[in-house]
Amino acid sequence: MNELVSIVMGSDSDLEVMQECADVLKDFAIPYSMQVMSAHRTPGKVADYAAAAAKKGIKVMIAGAGAAAHLAGAVAANTILPVIGVPLAATLNGFDALLSTVQMPAGIPVATVAVGKAGAKNAGLLAVQILALSDSSLVKKLEAYKSKMAISCEEKNEKLQEKLRK
Amino acid sequence: MNELVSIVMGSDSDLEVMQECADVLKDFAIPYSMQVMSAHRTPGKVADYAAAAAKKGIKVMIAGAGAAAHLAGAVAANTILPVIGVPLAATLNGFDALLSTVQMPAGIPVATVAVGKAGAKNAGLLAVQILALSDSSLVKKLEAYKSKMAISCEEKNEKLQEKLRK
Amino acid sequence: MNELVSIVMGSDSDLEVMQECADVLKDFAIPYSMQVMSAHRTPGKVADYAAAAAKKGIKVMIAGAGAAAHLAGAVAANTILPVIGVPLAATLNGFDALLSTVQMPAGIPVATVAVGKAGAKNAGLLAVQILALSDSSLVKKLEAYKSKMAISCEEKNEKLQEKLRK
Amino acid sequence: MNELVSIVMGSDSDLEVMQECADVLKDFAIPYSMQVMSAHRTPGKVADYAAAAAKKGIKVMIAGAGAAAHLAGAVAANTILPVIGVPLAATLNGFDALLSTVQMPAGIPVATVAVGKAGAKNAGLLAVQILALSDSSLVKKLEAYKSKMAISCEEKNEKLQEKLRK
Amino acid sequence: MNELVSIVMGSDSDLEVMQECADVLKDFAIPYSMQVMSAHRTPGKVADYAAAAAKKGIKVMIAGAGAAAHLAGAVAANTILPVIGVPLAATLNGFDALLSTVQMPAGIPVATVAVGKAGAKNAGLLAVQILALSDSSLVKKLEAYKSKMAISCEEKNEKLQEKLRK
Amino acid sequence: MNELVSIVMGSDSDLEVMQECADVLKDFAIPYSMQVMSAHRTPGKVADYAAAAAKKGIKVMIAGAGAAAHLAGAVAANTILPVIGVPLAATLNGFDALLSTVQMPAGIPVATVAVGKAGAKNAGLLAVQILALSDSSLVKKLEAYKSKMAISCEEKNEKLQEKLRK
Amino acid sequence: MNELVSIVMGSDSDLEVMQECADVLKDFAIPYSMQVMSAHRTPGKVADYAAAAAKKGIKVMIAGAGAAAHLAGAVAANTILPVIGVPLAATLNGFDALLSTVQMPAGIPVATVAVGKAGAKNAGLLAVQILALSDSSLVKKLEAYKSKMAISCEEKNEKLQEKLRK
Amino acid sequence: MNELVSIVMGSDSDLEVMQECADVLKDFAIPYSMQVMSAHRTPGKVADYAAAAAKKGIKVMIAGAGAAAHLAGAVAANTILPVIGVPLAATLNGFDALLSTVQMPAGIPVATVAVGKAGAKNAGLLAVQILALSDSSLVKKLEAYKSKMAISCEEKNEKLQEKLRK
Repeated sequence: MNELVSIVMGSDSDLEVMQECADVLKDFAIPYSMQVMSAHRTPGKVADYAAAAAKKGIKVMIAGAGAAAHLAGAVAANTILPVIGVPLAATLNGFDALLSTVQMPAGIPVATVAVGKAGAKNAGLLAVQILALSDSSLVKKLEAYKSKMAISCEEKNEKLQEKLRK
Repeated sequence: MNELVSIVMGSDSDLEVMQECADVLKDFAIPYSMQVMSAHRTPGKVADYAAAAAKKGIKVMIAGAGAAAHLAGAVAANTILPVIGVPLAATLNGFDALLSTVQMPAGIPVATVAVGKAGAKNAGLLAVQILALSDSSLVKKLEAYKSKMAISCEEKNEKLQEKLRK
Repeated sequence: MNELVSIVMGSDSDLEVMQECADVLKDFAIPYSMQVMSAHRTPGKVADYAAAAAKKGIKVMIAGAGAAAHLAGAVAANTILPVIGVPLAATLNGFDALLSTVQMPAGIPVATVAVGKAGAKNAGLLAVQILALSDSSLVKKLEAYKSKMAISCEEKNEKLQEKLRK
Repeated sequence: MNELVSIVMGSDSDLEVMQECADVLKDFAIPYSMQVMSAHRTPGKVADYAAAAAKKGIKVMIAGAGAAAHLAGAVAANTILPVIGVPLAATLNGFDALLSTVQMPAGIPVATVAVGKAGAKNAGLLAVQILALSDSSLVKKLEAYKSKMAISCEEKNEKLQEKLRK
Repeated sequence: MNELVSIVMGSDSDLEVMQECADVLKDFAIPYSMQVMSAHRTPGKVADYAAAAAKKGIKVMIAGAGAAAHLAGAVAANTILPVIGVPLAATLNGFDALLSTVQMPAGIPVATVAVGKAGAKNAGLLAVQILALSDSSLVKKLEAYKSKMAISCEEKNEKLQEKLRK
Repeated sequence: MNELVSIVMGSDSDLEVMQECADVLKDFAIPYSMQVMSAHRTPGKVADYAAAAAKKGIKVMIAGAGAAAHLAGAVAANTILPVIGVPLAATLNGFDALLSTVQMPAGIPVATVAVGKAGAKNAGLLAVQILALSDSSLVKKLEAYKSKMAISCEEKNEKLQEKLRK
Repeated sequence: MNELVSIVMGSDSDLEVMQECADVLKDFAIPYSMQVMSAHRTPGKVADYAAAAAKKGIKVMIAGAGAAAHLAGAVAANTILPVIGVPLAATLNGFDALLSTVQMPAGIPVATVAVGKAGAKNAGLLAVQILALSDSSLVKKLEAYKSKMAISCEEKNEKLQEKLRK
Repeated sequence: MNELVSIVMGSDSDLEVMQECADVLKDFAIPYSMQVMSAHRTPGKVADYAAAAAKKGIKVMIAGAGAAAHLAGAVAANTILPVIGVPLAATLNGFDALLSTVQMPAGIPVATVAVGKAGAKNAGLLAVQILALSDSSLVKKLEAYKSKMAISCEEKNEKLQEKLRK
């Protein structure tokens, strides 16, 4: 089955963080692809890939990049699909990647999530939330996921209570 | 017809900026509602409203707030719908609202856009992009919108060329 | 005896820092509870817990969270008890947690302390200072604590003088 | 009747902002004093005043200052009363005042609120919340205040709905 | 004569600032073009234009943009000509544009100058300095320009001395 | 053969980062020199060296420095050659070096690149791009370099695809 | 009588702020000079002037500059006199000038004061404090100045008390 | 012989950094004292100590502190001696200590140096520069120190040249 979500990242060194994103999609059994392509080193490929994505059946694009992080913006410039941007931290603590990703001009939105791993995971979840709008099985899975998070949080609390009672 | 997009904002003073968002939805003929509710002043209402939104047929939620901007996060905590956060600028140039909106913990994404009016407009467009995944008429409108933006950009360039020739 | 101070934190990974807070309360023999609950993962629990706290005899609430740290604000939205917020450092050096905690809108104060362990300790002390307003035994303990701090500071100075004389 | 809350500010130019604080206390019928004194220009007075405050029956101290805002810290160093710090904005957008006020070392808490007018108002409310712990009439007033805020928020929403219907 | 320097800007609202750049080139009698094109609204045009620039005889490219300022990077990705980036200030004081422009990944340099008008002027001068490497008449003009700046600075000093003597 | 590019750095501890710059020039077979000199410790030498550089046949100057990084500005003040500044990270994450290098006043441009190693490498490449304007063999090498970067990026992608297929 | 304090500024547009500095010196009857000279436009003059200052009897040098504010550092590099740096605010709120002035490398101190007018005034006072170490008449004046500040602060307080009584 | 320079620091954990300051004074054979005292833990001692310093023959005071670093300001509030502030880095990279130290209000200067060890060393040197105004032997030593720095810088350069020749 063709991918519904396309994950792109600017460098293979971004894989460790962006894997969080892929793991979420795998958990929700959503077919995805993951690719290295660079807004600066392979700009034509990014443009072509983004422009062709919708026709290939891709529904959501996720782009992770650091520093002057243009990848998400470059993708968004070439598609009308929703594009999610994950700012990755490097020299300036990720402030540069965050501002480069989120401060898009009017007309070309990038749905930006948090810097680093939490953001990468949330990018995956946001993609699932978007896909769930036309797939009711995903709605149930998301509700289950949300419940499980709440339960896991309560279990952590219970463990803490046990620890405190000792 | 019921709204597909729900816009909420923390205060009526946010209306001027968030109107950008509504204007985009109006342009795309997407039914929307716009409401003032506050994560801090009416937390129960926000929680109930967010929790009930999906059943009312709402597909995308947009929340605009300033300072310690919790509104988008509070909405996201109570729904599995995609939530778009618009950080609004106040005392600290909008840095506070941006970080409060985008730095969400793993599990609860908020799709954050730029600070201020550009962000508000893009929140509307992002909602349209999401809705377009299951509405091919919106795909065409988005493609037309994108073309029009490009053409408008080229026209501005032509005007500049005329000006330079003088 | 029921707790007078309630410490909540967004994740069990926050325990190491928030323990500083608990240690202070233990030193002052103030009954406290410590719980994991999340503004985003268990929002209803946070709201219910905060809303019920005053009736259970809780006098002061302390909330520690990182990133888009909404926990203290979510507690404050649901109680009229004084709420102390402890910003915890993560990706962006704690700037995000600090701004998300302190920049509360008019009407819903959060008494914010420093980022990290110094802040966690001070949150405990601030709670004691508040409780001391109606408990004169605490006044004496606080005065003793303050004297001890001053003496410890002077002792460190004396040790330095010894070291310098060598 | 003697003041229960003491408001101090570093300069008379801070009055416009700090008046927000006084107005809240007036609304709650809490006796307060308001004074200009400076951690740098009249340090002895600040120290003496803070040291004597508890004996005069003052319960909560509020200090507003800008730039390298030391006033709240200087007060806190000389009292065991709870001290609330209001960072005031000047050249560096209030970042300097915020960090100078909130980043207190372990042992000497300052309950810091938001930069500027929202913070000044919240400082007043936080003082009321603290006093309400031993004054049940204030509890009722705070509950009423909170309800009124919620109602006002809903009214703003209704006005917006009317406007949208037109 | 064909242009040697190409100035591009993301929006016609950037013209006021980027005119500083054009004025410098005019002063040095260097043929230039000035165009509006956007990395996000007309990405293909930017790529094609940048890729074709060298063959048209363009020697230096200057790109001015604000917010998530990708224009200079998008140009640099598509040419081996030296590219100068001018960050323009908007919501976040230009911090976003500065970081988006300067923090380019290894392999794709953008010669970044100061935020705003000083930067736009310096972009023009930097282009002249580059062109002067193979045009000795420009060397003389640059030396004269530098002398004139020094003299103007000294004249300002003399005026100040006169004023002080009064 | 005399150097065409002169690399200067404020301290020998900057060598590790600035070596990236030298390595690029070596790859392109461009003669360069590398020297330690300090805008603050040997200001006269910096001034003299910069003033004499053009006559020695130097075409481009690169200066790397950290903290209150004045070296690039001090060089630029004394030459009309293009000067590239590399901000080096130290205590404040390189924000200080970045702002000290890039925010030059009108009249004295410094072509600033990214903080740290990526910037140092790009400084070398920018120098090559400038030299290539009058050396067509460098044009070919730069084009090959750019192709190689693109190919390397695609190879990384292929490796990722292999990994994903397993 | 020759000047004891030399005030230099990078541009005549800095005069309005730096006048605060001159006014303080005038109040203390300390002979001073005030000059426009630029670390970047007239670097040789700055170096020569700083190098010759001690022999002319100058005791303290004050340098005010904005943006990549190198003037104080350039002066300090060429003299062993104490140098006071005044960061002036421009595009980036003065953060750039502050970091460029204060983050000097080991070996070359610049005594940095606050951004803008408060800093300019304090630069003057710091110079007086330094000169007072060998001029007991200045000691008395400084003590009187300090008393007057305290009294003025108390008078403002009294005016506030009057206002509050009404 | 009595100390001419007094170094104070807020905590004994600051000793490692502030030792840089003492080492410089030792090198210049200037008698100094070094003490731990805290603006917040022993405010009275700081005030008394600062107020008495001039009479004891102290000429320059140096204060090092981190976070909401008030020590230098507290000293400056109580003396007319020149006060040098050394911001020490902690949670927020030293930004908090820098702003808390440098942004002093008009009337109470603190001569602020760089964050951390470079600043501590420069604080010592700045003290020597101030003392040298009335001690010609120090002038010679400072000139020798400056020459030695220049020579050491040139030696580092020579070592680099040797390394490059290999």
